[in-house]
Amino acid sequence: MAAEQDPEGRAAARPLLTDLYQATMALGYWRAGRARDAAEFELFFRRCPFDGAFALAAGLRDCVRFLRAFRLRDADVQFLASVLPPDTDPAFFEHLRALDCSEVTVRALPEGSLAFPGVPLLQVSGPLLVVQLLETPLLCLVSYASLVATNAARLRLIAGPEKRLLEMGLRRAQGPDGGLTASTYSYLGGFDSSSNVLAGQLRGVPVAGTLAHSFVTSFSGSEVPPDPMLAPAAGEGPGVDLAAKAQVWLEPVCAHLGLGVQEPHPGERAAFVAYALAFPRAFQGLLDSYSVWRSGLPNFLAVALALGELGYRAVGVRLDSGDLLQQAQEIRKVFRAAAAQFQVPWLESVSIAVSNNIDEEALARLAQEGSEVNVIGIGTSVVTCPQQPSLGGVYKLVAVGGQPRMKLTEDPEKQTLPGSKAAFRLLGSDGSLLMDVLQLAEEPEPQAGQELRVWPPGAQEPCTVRPAQVEPLLRLCLQQGQVAAPPPSSC
Amino acid sequence: MAAEQDPEGRAAARPLLTDLYQATMALGYWRAGRARDAAEFELFFRRCPFDGAFALAAGLRDCVRFLRAFRLRDADVQFLASVLPPDTDPAFFEHLRALDCSEVTVRALPEGSLAFPGVPLLQVSGPLLVVQLLETPLLCLVSYASLVATNAARLRLIAGPEKRLLEMGLRRAQGPDGGLTASTYSYLGGFDSSSNVLAGQLRGVPVAGTLAHSFVTSFSGSEVPPDPMLAPAAGEGPGVDLAAKAQVWLEPVCAHLGLGVQEPHPGERAAFVAYALAFPRAFQGLLDSYSVWRSGLPNFLAVALALGELGYRAVGVRLDSGDLLQQAQEIRKVFRAAAAQFQVPWLESVSIAVSNNIDEEALARLAQEGSEVNVIGIGTSVVTCPQQPSLGGVYKLVAVGGQPRMKLTEDPEKQTLPGSKAAFRLLGSDGSLLMDVLQLAEEPEPQAGQELRVWPPGAQEPCTVRPAQVEPLLRLCLQQGQVAAPPPSSC
Repeated sequence: MAAEQDPEGRAAARPLLTDLYQATMALGYWRAGRARDAAEFELFFRRCPFDGAFALAAGLRDCVRFLRAFRLRDADVQFLASVLPPDTDPAFFEHLRALDCSEVTVRALPEGSLAFPGVPLLQVSGPLLVVQLLETPLLCLVSYASLVATNAARLRLIAGPEKRLLEMGLRRAQGPDGGLTASTYSYLGGFDSSSNVLAGQLRGVPVAGTLAHSFVTSFSGSEVPPDPMLAPAAGEGPGVDLAAKAQVWLEPVCAHLGLGVQEPHPGERAAFVAYALAFPRAFQGLLDSYSVWRSGLPNFLAVALALGELGYRAVGVRLDSGDLLQQAQEIRKVFRAAAAQFQVPWLESVSIAVSNNIDEEALARLAQEGSEVNVIGIGTSVVTCPQQPSLGGVYKLVAVGGQPRMKLTEDPEKQTLPGSKAAFRLLGSDGSLLMDVLQLAEEPEPQAGQELRVWPPGAQEPCTVRPAQVEPLLRLCLQQGQVAAPPPSSC
Repeated sequence: MAAEQDPEGRAAARPLLTDLYQATMALGYWRAGRARDAAEFELFFRRCPFDGAFALAAGLRDCVRFLRAFRLRDADVQFLASVLPPDTDPAFFEHLRALDCSEVTVRALPEGSLAFPGVPLLQVSGPLLVVQLLETPLLCLVSYASLVATNAARLRLIAGPEKRLLEMGLRRAQGPDGGLTASTYSYLGGFDSSSNVLAGQLRGVPVAGTLAHSFVTSFSGSEVPPDPMLAPAAGEGPGVDLAAKAQVWLEPVCAHLGLGVQEPHPGERAAFVAYALAFPRAFQGLLDSYSVWRSGLPNFLAVALALGELGYRAVGVRLDSGDLLQQAQEIRKVFRAAAAQFQVPWLESVSIAVSNNIDEEALARLAQEGSEVNVIGIGTSVVTCPQQPSLGGVYKLVAVGGQPRMKLTEDPEKQTLPGSKAAFRLLGSDGSLLMDVLQLAEEPEPQAGQELRVWPPGAQEPCTVRPAQVEPLLRLCLQQGQVAAPPPSSC
């Protein structure tokens, strides 16, 4: 059973995860005696997503895993028989039962590399019937992975290198696998971490997270913890009742902030103490369950200063509503003043984390010069790719039996480029990318230092280019069903 | 292993498919001695998706399946231990190892029922630690399912009851499970069928599909089928060479259409013949691989008329580019004229299927009065919900230990309604929906025929309503971990 063979949580990527027309065409090919004709398909996209200038290729590892495990189980064949004509020749189903990818060869752009319109992310060759059947699952595995990696890379470019970006979109994804794919490939695209624990367990993505409003609001302040004592960070000396210590700190903190000592919510403070007891070295305060200024901030400071007395440094705070940039500026001022007032210099620079429907525009504002925001959590905007929620990848037949194949149509954008191709990346002497070149596989390869005549897409006439370096783009990753090399990656 | 327990392809919906902060909060609750406090959460959305007036509740069945199987495996607990502080009390991990949902009770809106802002889709009660851990997976399972079902229902309302709607978005989904969820819940929302074979096998969704451009372009016309003979539909009499018969029909068809007999592409005709040999009772011509008017249509007619001679009726044609409405009108005219010319009345009414990035606006045009389109295939627009790719579902703590809990914040929209609630649907005497009413669980239930004072969201003052019927909305579906009844469904 496919699910059992898959230790990485992608049990749904089975051979029947395909469009029915792949199976009806399979029968058509088989009936025409063409099941084993040598065919080649290309998987590519026609336009860069998000009206952008690039995409990142991703999903290759998932494709290789899927192809290596590709077998139709008896139950799969029986299901296909139930939806195909009842008088279908049983020999067709025997053919399906014996199918695998042992004659399939795949070349691909390395995982994480820059990809441009028309240049294949995957070249898939093998028997016509089987490489046709692979169309939908390969598109399903590559398109969203590449889209979300590209989206994450755009967000990283906007945020700049310093801000820490946390992907937290699992609850906004298209079900479990959408969430796992989003977390995996946001990390590939440049995020620092994910909230998704399964992505950590299965894909090695660094995971992060602290507490939600429900934790804060679950405390009323009347709870009695079974063990309120916290030992000093250095491990020596007697433990301290952290709640009592925070209560002591509340008075000078409120005086410093000009608040009455009754204003901060006791339940929120109890929640902060409870969290700090569990995570004394990683205490973060979520400030906006009641009121940032009258409750969240004084409660955080009281607990952080109590922890500080024991030698622990709070990690920082998180905001999930309101004007995040402005609040961060004001909170930083409070931290600086409190650091001076209470002689705890580390408090100046504790981390300010923000979240709340952050899109590209909001991110640009949060990342502007002088912003005091340190960590930015992004969910919906990275996972759903709202500017363009689908890459629009296609998988097109380019050759059969060594002969080129082309779809003409009356829609020029949907026409395909016929023939088996090679692709090269031309670089300047400083390593900068000049262009990617697509040519027929049998044409001589471009040579570094030699002039090359090329026809850019959409141009009226060809131009010449002299690359300082030439890199072949498509790397062999599956040869006749065998993994040719560790899946190439540019990351 | 969770994957093995799940016959329906959702192996990724494991307990660790959650945000890390659920696990850190779990430790916080445990350390505070509150793991087993009785808590209640509500899962709801704040605004109807797509600026619309309703949503459909969906995903309940997936939630029940997830909850019943909920157990942390040793490997899961070990992974959590690796990301939590190294000095965490081992007793916490023992607690996690023993966790299940045997004390969890869930009430829910029936699958497929109308849902409105603020009314819980799920009410989840049980020990605080475990019901907190369930937040992310439940949101992940409910939000997208409800979103895509709602989107499909909107598309069905636009299309009207007559058009057949095919969901074909698997390749545009967020990986395998996004595709499976989309197909399952588009069907719930009112689509007729899906291209997704796995949705047919695992979820019983009717599947549909015929052929792609690659099938057409894979034929040059020089192929020799191993068996070109087709027996008559009635099963009696000698077989006929279908390719030869189609070639005979080509001449009168081209004469009728004013085309030269060399104009239609021989490879396309060979592909149609090959498909018709495999599916003589379900032949559909995909018309736009080369040219609809000069090739696709005459080739379709030649093969359809050849099949007709043998007693088979072609299913129809499919278009995937250009102005779909206008082409459908013109193709219908050609069918009518050809039906008269060649005395085959059934040809008038064969199905015209269309696809190609159809969104709500394009669908409205295709569904207009007098449209000759019969079947509409929709991919990206139904699966990715581009108008709003996330429902924005939330899961909020409303009570602990029987005491109400509320998040205030300074953002009024993010404030929560405290307390354990009941929900009722008020109906008029004609069965029309008046409103849904949310009230505290301990308040007396509204009674049919009696006046009720209600406060509509956003209103300045209360109003009164006298319902002819009152229906309780939230049905018990999991009681202390046991399935209370077959998951309720309004479909």
